[in-house]
Amino acid sequence: MKSKTRSATGRLLYAQSGGVTAVINATAAGVIQTARAHRVPVYAAHNGILGALREELIDTTKETAAAIAALRHTPGGAFGSCRYKLKSLDANRAEYERLIEIFRAHEIRWFLYNGGNDSADTALKISQLGQAMDYDIRCIGVPKTVDNDLMVTDCCPGFGSVAKYTAVSTLEASLDVASMADTSTKVFIVEVMGRHAGWIAAAAGLAGEGPDAAPHIILFPERVFDEAAFLAKVKATVERVGWCTVVASEGIRSADGQFLAAGSTDAFGHAQLGGAAPVLAALVKEKLGYKYHWALPDYLQRSARHLASKTDADQAYAVGKAAVDYALAGMNAVMPVIVRTSDAPYRWKLEAAPLDKIANHEKKMPDKFISRDGFGITAAARRYLSPLIRGEAPPPYGREGLPKYVQLKNVAVTKKLLAFVR
Amino acid sequence: MKSKTRSATGRLLYAQSGGVTAVINATAAGVIQTARAHRVPVYAAHNGILGALREELIDTTKETAAAIAALRHTPGGAFGSCRYKLKSLDANRAEYERLIEIFRAHEIRWFLYNGGNDSADTALKISQLGQAMDYDIRCIGVPKTVDNDLMVTDCCPGFGSVAKYTAVSTLEASLDVASMADTSTKVFIVEVMGRHAGWIAAAAGLAGEGPDAAPHIILFPERVFDEAAFLAKVKATVERVGWCTVVASEGIRSADGQFLAAGSTDAFGHAQLGGAAPVLAALVKEKLGYKYHWALPDYLQRSARHLASKTDADQAYAVGKAAVDYALAGMNAVMPVIVRTSDAPYRWKLEAAPLDKIANHEKKMPDKFISRDGFGITAAARRYLSPLIRGEAPPPYGREGLPKYVQLKNVAVTKKLLAFVR
Repeated sequence: MKSKTRSATGRLLYAQSGGVTAVINATAAGVIQTARAHRVPVYAAHNGILGALREELIDTTKETAAAIAALRHTPGGAFGSCRYKLKSLDANRAEYERLIEIFRAHEIRWFLYNGGNDSADTALKISQLGQAMDYDIRCIGVPKTVDNDLMVTDCCPGFGSVAKYTAVSTLEASLDVASMADTSTKVFIVEVMGRHAGWIAAAAGLAGEGPDAAPHIILFPERVFDEAAFLAKVKATVERVGWCTVVASEGIRSADGQFLAAGSTDAFGHAQLGGAAPVLAALVKEKLGYKYHWALPDYLQRSARHLASKTDADQAYAVGKAAVDYALAGMNAVMPVIVRTSDAPYRWKLEAAPLDKIANHEKKMPDKFISRDGFGITAAARRYLSPLIRGEAPPPYGREGLPKYVQLKNVAVTKKLLAFVR
Repeated sequence: MKSKTRSATGRLLYAQSGGVTAVINATAAGVIQTARAHRVPVYAAHNGILGALREELIDTTKETAAAIAALRHTPGGAFGSCRYKLKSLDANRAEYERLIEIFRAHEIRWFLYNGGNDSADTALKISQLGQAMDYDIRCIGVPKTVDNDLMVTDCCPGFGSVAKYTAVSTLEASLDVASMADTSTKVFIVEVMGRHAGWIAAAAGLAGEGPDAAPHIILFPERVFDEAAFLAKVKATVERVGWCTVVASEGIRSADGQFLAAGSTDAFGHAQLGGAAPVLAALVKEKLGYKYHWALPDYLQRSARHLASKTDADQAYAVGKAAVDYALAGMNAVMPVIVRTSDAPYRWKLEAAPLDKIANHEKKMPDKFISRDGFGITAAARRYLSPLIRGEAPPPYGREGLPKYVQLKNVAVTKKLLAFVR
């Protein structure tokens, strides 16, 4: 029987972790299509590593080839994601024993974890279980994060699309502001994602070049927010150009270390932010008296599959494919990373990098990417960023004017174990 | 000489007014291309009616055919817009005399004013000047507003594109929230434009159908905000579906008539709003304890030419063309309006409607478009809205990954008069 033959060679478990992106499902498509080509059945964990701990597994073999292909243009996380970080083996051995129990019960031989820094850490810990717990499991990390802050890889799948969304939206809204500035809004502020690294804010800089082109001011978390210098530049820009577009990272902080936006903390203990834009707007209104508008696209920016970068969508698919190739080749504790071999023409390839070089590290914007006054990007930043937003990869649209995003059946695998109580 | 011949027949003056849209320049393309076909030279007023009062005119004959064609896919207002309402003839005769003086000096025989309710009022006043001031001027209003609140016309150019943006963004962000809800955001709130009419909020309803599909709650300015009913529905939705998407119009008010978002007033005396979403989010957090995110796309929604509705882009072009046809046929004080002749298949045509039926009126959402509980749209609303977001009309993209939006030369016409001092 077919299923018998398959079971004998084991299954591959794929899980999505952390904040999802416009193209994480393209990675899922790369994983599942490649595994299918090798006749390896794929289970997906429901809601990331939590699905594995809870034995909530999804049988992707129940999905049609067309549905899996449609993942390539569907945003969000098709199997659910989670914000949950495994403790160390010493601190919570029971969780790891549970995972091995699940893997054994379902003959999981390969585990692919698709996420950012924290997920690379989880993947690294699981990759070390084989020896520690005498079960043959290979674990591959698969890169994903709109924050673009993973080490080693030249860029992160998910970032190019939010970068393109941010650059295009900044350009479009600035055309709007330019037409209205005579009698209406003079200062427009967009707040973008990026807790500790200003990659997304920097990408807005691709919208224009030269001192009079929008965005006129970019506020990076890598630079202390200097109120006086900011206001002086807003004023000078409005007086010279007639209006001013500001792009602010959510993570900007004043000299005393306080975030401009107050916030709570997420499951990883990260501050959860939002709301620097209205603070800046109030400042502009109070100190300069200019009429303002502000925007905070929030999830709209990272889910905007309709405006995905083709470079990004291609890379997202490729890392999924490579991760399966690595796993089936017997590799362990690695991640496929993007290596840039040329800026112009832009060329890239994939390589396997050890997870311990990536887990828990965070890549900041290089100093040389931020202009001397701290409010813009340099030519070096443009050279780096520009290829990442190139090309369009629009989803197919239906007759009703909406993209044809797929909803998988997500058939649950029958549980074999008792519930896990932590 | 060519210019002599042209002068003899007079010029057409085109001006953009009020908040701009993703497709108002498509109307400009319709105007200029049609006038060129009739060998009528077009001047554009810089920043709407103010440009006419200040004699700041732009000679569009200096633009190439390619540049004018590119207007069809460029957002914002290519000639600048303004928020400025002419007083009545009795209240400020000097302004009207100035306009006639400008028209006479530049041989303007046709004036096309592209805007919303207030602009239709300005157009109507100018159309009455011919008799009052003994100068042969024909004035045509051209419809434009993302608010979709003009009377007579079935819909307004500009609305279909912001409707499509809102429906697609709601769909995409909801896929994101659905994947994260287990350990992260459970309630996502998007605030959309719409001061007094909930047309844009209603369009978000096209993202899904049925009680479990996003958006689960739409808050209309046509309904008093009922905190208890809202919270009860959020709670029931999270408990049933696992998460909840809320789309809120900026104009929602509580029973005492207060806007949820505090605000200032614009030049027309309208309240300028923004910030209902964070108020709702704080409410959800405080009363229900759910983790939330909120988005406020602001200008991004009305300038998103990259996601324009083809229906809308086509209608925007068509009203520009029709306005020139009406003007050259000697009509006065009318506006080309969209008449829907069939829902399925969707069919429409243009007709000339008298400006006095449109000026200063405001069309609200019909009661029958809002579901009985006040939190959703009806089948009748879907029938009306659905055709308006149909079809895609993406701009061409350049090699750098950005849309190829045109920047006109905007060559100023030499002034012939002394400055006007009001």
